[in-house]
Amino acid sequence: MKIIGVVTSGGDAPGMNAAIRGVVRIANSKNIEVIGFERGWEGLLTNSFRRLAPRSVGGILHLGGTILHTSRCPEFKKDEAIKKAAETLALNNVEGLVVIGGDGSLHGALELSKKTNTLIMGVPASIDNDVFGTDETIGFDTAVNTAVNEIDKIRDTAVSLERIFIVEVMGRTRGFLALNVGITVGAEMILVPEVKYENEKIFRTIKESKEKGKRSAIIVAAEGIGDNRQLASEIEKATGSEVRLSVLGYTQRGGNPSARSRLLASLFADEAVELLSKGQGSRAVVLRNGKITSIELEESCKTDKLLDLGLLTLAKVLAT
Amino acid sequence: MKIIGVVTSGGDAPGMNAAIRGVVRIANSKNIEVIGFERGWEGLLTNSFRRLAPRSVGGILHLGGTILHTSRCPEFKKDEAIKKAAETLALNNVEGLVVIGGDGSLHGALELSKKTNTLIMGVPASIDNDVFGTDETIGFDTAVNTAVNEIDKIRDTAVSLERIFIVEVMGRTRGFLALNVGITVGAEMILVPEVKYENEKIFRTIKESKEKGKRSAIIVAAEGIGDNRQLASEIEKATGSEVRLSVLGYTQRGGNPSARSRLLASLFADEAVELLSKGQGSRAVVLRNGKITSIELEESCKTDKLLDLGLLTLAKVLAT
Amino acid sequence: MKIIGVVTSGGDAPGMNAAIRGVVRIANSKNIEVIGFERGWEGLLTNSFRRLAPRSVGGILHLGGTILHTSRCPEFKKDEAIKKAAETLALNNVEGLVVIGGDGSLHGALELSKKTNTLIMGVPASIDNDVFGTDETIGFDTAVNTAVNEIDKIRDTAVSLERIFIVEVMGRTRGFLALNVGITVGAEMILVPEVKYENEKIFRTIKESKEKGKRSAIIVAAEGIGDNRQLASEIEKATGSEVRLSVLGYTQRGGNPSARSRLLASLFADEAVELLSKGQGSRAVVLRNGKITSIELEESCKTDKLLDLGLLTLAKVLAT
Amino acid sequence: MKIIGVVTSGGDAPGMNAAIRGVVRIANSKNIEVIGFERGWEGLLTNSFRRLAPRSVGGILHLGGTILHTSRCPEFKKDEAIKKAAETLALNNVEGLVVIGGDGSLHGALELSKKTNTLIMGVPASIDNDVFGTDETIGFDTAVNTAVNEIDKIRDTAVSLERIFIVEVMGRTRGFLALNVGITVGAEMILVPEVKYENEKIFRTIKESKEKGKRSAIIVAAEGIGDNRQLASEIEKATGSEVRLSVLGYTQRGGNPSARSRLLASLFADEAVELLSKGQGSRAVVLRNGKITSIELEESCKTDKLLDLGLLTLAKVLAT
Repeated sequence: MKIIGVVTSGGDAPGMNAAIRGVVRIANSKNIEVIGFERGWEGLLTNSFRRLAPRSVGGILHLGGTILHTSRCPEFKKDEAIKKAAETLALNNVEGLVVIGGDGSLHGALELSKKTNTLIMGVPASIDNDVFGTDETIGFDTAVNTAVNEIDKIRDTAVSLERIFIVEVMGRTRGFLALNVGITVGAEMILVPEVKYENEKIFRTIKESKEKGKRSAIIVAAEGIGDNRQLASEIEKATGSEVRLSVLGYTQRGGNPSARSRLLASLFADEAVELLSKGQGSRAVVLRNGKITSIELEESCKTDKLLDLGLLTLAKVLAT
Repeated sequence: MKIIGVVTSGGDAPGMNAAIRGVVRIANSKNIEVIGFERGWEGLLTNSFRRLAPRSVGGILHLGGTILHTSRCPEFKKDEAIKKAAETLALNNVEGLVVIGGDGSLHGALELSKKTNTLIMGVPASIDNDVFGTDETIGFDTAVNTAVNEIDKIRDTAVSLERIFIVEVMGRTRGFLALNVGITVGAEMILVPEVKYENEKIFRTIKESKEKGKRSAIIVAAEGIGDNRQLASEIEKATGSEVRLSVLGYTQRGGNPSARSRLLASLFADEAVELLSKGQGSRAVVLRNGKITSIELEESCKTDKLLDLGLLTLAKVLAT
Repeated sequence: MKIIGVVTSGGDAPGMNAAIRGVVRIANSKNIEVIGFERGWEGLLTNSFRRLAPRSVGGILHLGGTILHTSRCPEFKKDEAIKKAAETLALNNVEGLVVIGGDGSLHGALELSKKTNTLIMGVPASIDNDVFGTDETIGFDTAVNTAVNEIDKIRDTAVSLERIFIVEVMGRTRGFLALNVGITVGAEMILVPEVKYENEKIFRTIKESKEKGKRSAIIVAAEGIGDNRQLASEIEKATGSEVRLSVLGYTQRGGNPSARSRLLASLFADEAVELLSKGQGSRAVVLRNGKITSIELEESCKTDKLLDLGLLTLAKVLAT
Repeated sequence: MKIIGVVTSGGDAPGMNAAIRGVVRIANSKNIEVIGFERGWEGLLTNSFRRLAPRSVGGILHLGGTILHTSRCPEFKKDEAIKKAAETLALNNVEGLVVIGGDGSLHGALELSKKTNTLIMGVPASIDNDVFGTDETIGFDTAVNTAVNEIDKIRDTAVSLERIFIVEVMGRTRGFLALNVGITVGAEMILVPEVKYENEKIFRTIKESKEKGKRSAIIVAAEGIGDNRQLASEIEKATGSEVRLSVLGYTQRGGNPSARSRLLASLFADEAVELLSKGQGSRAVVLRNGKITSIELEESCKTDKLLDLGLLTLAKVLAT
């Protein structure tokens, strides 16, 4: 193997730069050249890339975002676009391609792998932790900590003003972030898209919490559970308590990666290049049972990752 | 002087605890007892307070929020409520009262000072920095830094995805926070309630910025400038660029106070108790021209604090 | 089971409070009372404890240190002290005891378990991650992140002044912290007590690094590798480059626990109380292969935890 | 004025990049070109520089260190070196030079100003805040906050283990940093080089503190007060309490600049370029009484900056 490509795709996640650095330097130790496609799939459609040497990825390990830039690329769902990307890979003699991104990007990687001879390797990176097969994605730990630090601050006001706060965290369809954040800030309630909630039950929980002597409460809610603003006003009406909504927003995507996100990125990069150099493709590297390994891209894309509902129950007991 | 009271009122601000600690310990050094009224003006209406000894304010210097709790208290605008508060002060032989809070709280303090023999001393604490007469309020520096740190993270995504972000910071009527945050994050544009903005000018600025080679932009906007969500979609339509809105929200109120907010709180507390012990009242302690001093409460309440428009111009030049 | 005790022992670690909270609230959900012994083993020798109800552990989840205080207690190695502790447990009808601490504390727990009918359960908490049987201890992730954030700052100066820095992290006998920190800050070299290093090799590596164009370098060294100050001056002499030493010190023990340390503390507490309530003792709860489980205290105490030397090799490749 | 130069010199300070950015963009708005000399005075001795356009200082506002690098340059005290620097300025038609650095760098600037026709403007940047004439230097606020955040963490351990900690902060000859840090962490004692301390008094204070019920203590000591390790062991002997020493070290120099350091850097840069463009030189821009202004370089260099001893007294009262 002489040349591999690397691309970051979809929403950015802290640690993507650490993964790029890892790919470049591990490849270099195996005398493999690396080229980085720019702006996600777009770079493969427009043949836009730059050569990445060990020195060109210096000083980026600790930076959020991605030096290769990224983009959402809806046209990559079309056959034509995928064919074009395959041509770009062939044109540049790219024998292996490392695709760093979340669930959507791995789907793109899977489709691309069917139309090219270049070996494709997925590296799960997403603040949503929504990739099946891996216990954790690059960036997830950072996003959890960012949200936790922000909610620790919000609790100052919640306690001082004795109010209820709904804090909305990212997660349109999945509740991994909300669940991890909720349990680690000691949220009185956690609302995730995977579990239907009933307003009545929420009202009751808040009333019970008040009766136990708690004068403030934090409800952590994924953005995907519905209209959190409306929920806030419904709780106000039902309980007579003032409720505030705080939407954490894009800060959850950025910031310096946590140590864990950097480590995971480095280990994933190592495994990805190792597998490619051995001639393996159409796989995603994963963390499973605390160990780095890999699974078929197809399996990762076709299977739904389950939320640990036991954690939800534990969170409830811990917040009594 | 044998007994002074202390109360935190209105929205909480980081450093209020540092100010409470300061009042208690400075008073103690002068053999003055301190009682802390709870939940803002409410504590003066319900005669709810606790004695504060030097040891009871240990370990709070670095904590956000206020151990005395606070509340918004609209009924405190009525004569009856103020009379009731004056009675509570008399009942407990409170000779001096330190009121820690923002513009609204100082207005309450002024009204109260007219109906009581207790000496009233205002201590400006507010993340909005909206108190006339002081260059800075307790909590302002912390809020600026919190917002700046969050926007530094958002910029990771803005740069990686090459997008425009409107970041809404607190400030319903005043732009102090937006201006300070905007200039220190290098915002491409800063929108404050004090300055009318024209959509056309915003569109033009963004287009020019693009032409100069900037592929992303941060617009810092105070919440009081209008509907930021609508503004985002108008910019999208006019410029063809994707625009995201991020509302920083309540994290700006909380968190450990910065060193500067702690220092200011300590200095204000020192001056407040000093003045009370000398028999002075109806004043607010302030930072003016880099020095701690005080002005009449009436002057502070009756005068509008001006935004430094020169800073806005400088911010524009710096963001070229 | 009606009463369980909880104690934090040895050096403090961020997340100990989260573990105490977990023990109390999980126990409460099973109608078990909890008493907290104060100042580590000392509390068992002096029968000094307080009752812990769900409300008494509110607001501590996110705080570093331990509300029960802790101490080093060398006399706990003597039979007499252990007998005394066993008597205290009997006196208070403590049927189960949760011991939260590091390697040394678990050794104490093992000895105690041999002299008492009270069931003893170890919960690994230590910034050193030096407990056999668990992939991770409570507090380790926090300490790694604290050190990483500090070294990210030191790198600013290293790069600006183009200097070599030796950064000493905690770890008298074990290199887990140094290794994790080193790989995640991209250290040019990592020195751990488990691996003998030769000065000549260090000098050569630094010279090679310079030749590759790196004008600054970070060497992460565990405190236990020898005299880091002397090493610094030897490198200066041999390479002609200026070398600075920075000892990170006690900040690594403190601070708000990271999300992961809080989660681990909660999961460990859950498992510990669950096992005790089922009548199991003389065990330590652990994280093994990404799952919470438990092993015999004896096995944990008698076995040496191995450092992952593969990570050291990877770190070298990544820092090229 | 057509060309100005900019140089960062001496120890790095957070906000130097913000100052460079400010100089470049303000100059650009006046159609003045900017060249940046590299590695401090060394760049003026070796004629090593790069052109700085508005885009070349993008994305650096929030970064610690200095993109121009810096160095200590003892030979710059010699006439020969200064003559050489003057020649470099003439060679490149540099009409104005902005020197960003601390007390030592401004001394160099003063000497240089005597040997060149280029107008020289000093911009005080130093974590030590040791420049006469300015209430604050660029980087000081950041360093204070960094130290404060670290000591907040150390306090977790101090309280949990009930120990005394001496925390050494930077400051070989001046105690500005120690004083500001000490008062804002609530240190039980603050030791600065400007004030002789007696061991006996320290021992007494610690004993009194214990008697008041304080079981832990933080002593903030400037590095310049003497041998802090020895002091620790003397306190141990005299009081029978365990004492730990933590040396904060180089983290105080690095890290992202605080909002205030960024703002100060921007305002100083603006004033510096403004003055140069008006034909003024041999001055240092300063913050005096809360306003940006300037004084003669000579005055700044020849006058000793006094520590506010009133703050020391206040700190003592606040830590009771």
